[in-house]
This record gives sequence, structure tokens and C-alpha cells, in this order.
Amino acid sequence: MPGIPMIKRGDNLGRVIGEAIRRSGLRLEDGDVVVVAQKIVSKAEGRIVDLSRVSPSRSAVELAGRLKKDPREVEVILRESKEIVRLGHVLISRTEHGFVCANAGADRSNAGPGMMTLLPRDPDRSARRIRRELERTFKRRIAVIISDTWGRPFRMGCVGMAIGASGMEPLMRLRGERDLHGRMLRTTVLCPADSIAAAAVLVMGESGEGTPVAIVRGARYRPGRGGIGKVVMPPGRDLFR
Amino acid sequence: MPGIPMIKRGDNLGRVIGEAIRRSGLRLEDGDVVVVAQKIVSKAEGRIVDLSRVSPSRSAVELAGRLKKDPREVEVILRESKEIVRLGHVLISRTEHGFVCANAGADRSNAGPGMMTLLPRDPDRSARRIRRELERTFKRRIAVIISDTWGRPFRMGCVGMAIGASGMEPLMRLRGERDLHGRMLRTTVLCPADSIAAAAVLVMGESGEGTPVAIVRGARYRPGRGGIGKVVMPPGRDLFR
Repeated sequence: MPGIPMIKRGDNLGRVIGEAIRRSGLRLEDGDVVVVAQKIVSKAEGRIVDLSRVSPSRSAVELAGRLKKDPREVEVILRESKEIVRLGHVLISRTEHGFVCANAGADRSNAGPGMMTLLPRDPDRSARRIRRELERTFKRRIAVIISDTWGRPFRMGCVGMAIGASGMEPLMRLRGERDLHGRMLRTTVLCPADSIAAAAVLVMGESGEGTPVAIVRGARYRPGRGGIGKVVMPPGRDLFR
Repeated sequence: MPGIPMIKRGDNLGRVIGEAIRRSGLRLEDGDVVVVAQKIVSKAEGRIVDLSRVSPSRSAVELAGRLKKDPREVEVILRESKEIVRLGHVLISRTEHGFVCANAGADRSNAGPGMMTLLPRDPDRSARRIRRELERTFKRRIAVIISDTWGRPFRMGCVGMAIGASGMEPLMRLRGERDLHGRMLRTTVLCPADSIAAAAVLVMGESGEGTPVAIVRGARYRPGRGGIGKVVMPPGRDLFR
């Protein structure tokens, strides 16, 4: 989606995106998924911190030395972390949402000089608001995903991940298969929310500079209420906690 | 890509895929990425095991009780594993390729009754052979990815992953950003190979039943020699080993 202007606090993202779609001569169709980069959602919601106003705690200063980071950045990351999951050359933490990611999702890139963006407080709600606005405007049933760009254990390089979803089931259960004796072998659960976010980030670029919105058409998913919490692995099932 | 026939040992996959593309009236364009499901690559290369000929070892029998699996399946998984990384409700192992995945990538779904497919020995070479055949046929420069469908730590649901790549750089380095003082803040490395595999599996379905081949057009990647080894995180960098 070309033509998204610079976003500032208080902007109605659904309206801004709808106007950009109209201006570009596009329209939305039933089943389209509108993927919106976390960075502009955080800016619109004021989830942005001026580092010059942050006083790092003693533990943030110590950790910053080890990580070779700005102590104020580390202070912000610690405030956004519910739990430190791993500490090495990067800081991996679990956020209030249950996400496990580097730096609790706090990030300086494209945040503006001396600023750091935080993840939206409730990315599902952010997605829902944008979806409702776009559905009213275009009279179509769509889904909205809020995407971020994360690293993964065991694999080099970042990919798009869904941190919020509305209008779609983020997971999709495939029919189990049966063996010769008709016994159910297994059921596979796919994550179309993450797959669509990964596809979108391919055209958006990391943190969506320039292109913070993409429209994905023809993706296979089930409409539903959404709720990215279903993608957060319960700690009891998580072998890598 | 519709119209891929049942694949059997010895099939020349590049030729089979090329014929299906011609029959469907499609053609390949420069920059296209042809994504091929691991399952048909393994079948063509004879990387398939008849479980009735497998004698489980004592440790496979013990482990099978714990995992509630067929001891012969566990025996095959252990033979394909270089290292057991985690053992819980599933068995996570590191393969000879360096991949960390459930069951060392060995799988009964769509393998045929009583059969189990193994990962290709050298998926980059599998991708290269298919790419060369298709490039000869269509006189276009393309890339080929071999995809599998894997779970991830911390996230529910499976997504497509690249287990082999040819004709593209699997990673893509984005220019680092600079802060107010012109200091480089960071460089982001994306993994277009995994992102393209995730997008393709969305239309192919898990393990590619029915649709084991997809053509991805317009994806952003850098042409190159490929080699999925670049995506395998070196153990020293891996906080979750």
C-alpha cells in the first residue's frame, strides 16, 4: 500500500489507511487481510518514549554495560518485560502479552531521534479498531493483522510475526490423517496469522519503513474473532522456556 | 501449481514440475520462486522408510513408551538425529543439516501406509537440480526453495520453513540506520527464504497434500547461490540450545 503519510499520536489509523487505499485507486475485497506494521500503531497510540526523560536504574546500568547498550534503552526494555527469558548477546524477554522476543519489542529504528517505540498495550484491540473502520468504509468483511519483525531461536534472520489479529482465527486446524487401520495419526495446526505477516513483511520491509501497510489477498484462513493469545504457547507446553 | 502427479522414486522433479507448468498454461518469469514441498522431494529421492523393516533398539522402545509413539518411528527419528535438543511431549532434535525441528523432520503424513519420509540428504542440491532443469526449460532466472512445515518455540501452530534454497540469498541484510550523531544503530537481517516458504505453505497446505508446488512472484530477495546453511544459527550464538 503506497501513500501512508507519517503517523503521529492520536491519528485514526483505520481512517488514514482507508483514505490511502481510496487515493491509490484500490479497494478492499471480502477476505482481504490488511497487515499494519507495529511501528505506526505504536506511534498512533502514543506508545513511544523520549529517552532523554528516562532515568536508568542501577540494574539497567549494569545490564547495559554487559549488552553494550544505552542504559536508558535497557531501562525501558526492563519496564516492558514481565520476565527475562534469556540473556546473552541480546536480551530475550517475555512481555505482558506473553510474547517472547528480543528487547520486549521496544525498538529505536524509525522511532525518531532519541525515541523508542513500545509494543501496543493490546494489539488485538488495535487490530479490531482498524478493521471496524475499514469495514465501515468499504462495506467488506476483512481481517487485520498487526505485524512485527522478530528473530527466532535456531534460525538466522528475522521474519514477520503477528502480534495482533482481528477478523480471523490466527490458528487453523487441518483434518487429522488416518493410517491403514483408520486410526487418527495426528492433527496439524497451522498459524496463518504468522504466515500472512511473514508474507507481508517481505514487501513492507523491516518495521515497515516507507511501506507500513500491505494488503494480502487470496490467503487461506478462517474468519473469526481473532485474539493473538491463541498463538502464545502455554508455558506448560513450552520446551524452551 | 495444480496438476502435479503422484511422485515416485527416481522421478525428475524439475521435469515433472516444468510439464505441469506448461500444461496449466502458465510460464515462469525472471525472479519467480518455485517452492517445492519436502515430501515430494523425499519421495523422488527415495528418502522413505518402510516401517515394517525397522527393528527398534532398546532405547527407541523406552522412548516410544514415554512419547506414546510407535517404537519403529522413534528408531527412525533417532537415526536421523545428530543430537536430542529437547524431550517433552515431542522430541526435538538437531539433524545432520543443523536444523532443529520435531522428530528430525521424519514424518508419516502422506508418506503412504506404513511408510515414513525423511528429510532430503542435501536439500540445497535438491533445490539446485530442480532450478537448473526449470531454467533450461523456460530460459528464465529463478530461485527454488524446498519447504517443510514446522512448529516453533514460544508460538503455537506451524509455518512453512525453507530447508533448501538455490538461486537466492536466503538472508537479506538491510542497511543499518543512523542516529542523530550519524552513528550506526543496527543492521537488520531478514530471512526471505523462510518468509517465502511461509507464504507458499499458506496456499499449499501442510506437507503440500494436493498442492506440493507453489510459484511465488514479486517477492523481494537477492539472487545468489543459495545454501540454507546460512540460516542455521551457529551454536555459539544460539541462546536456546
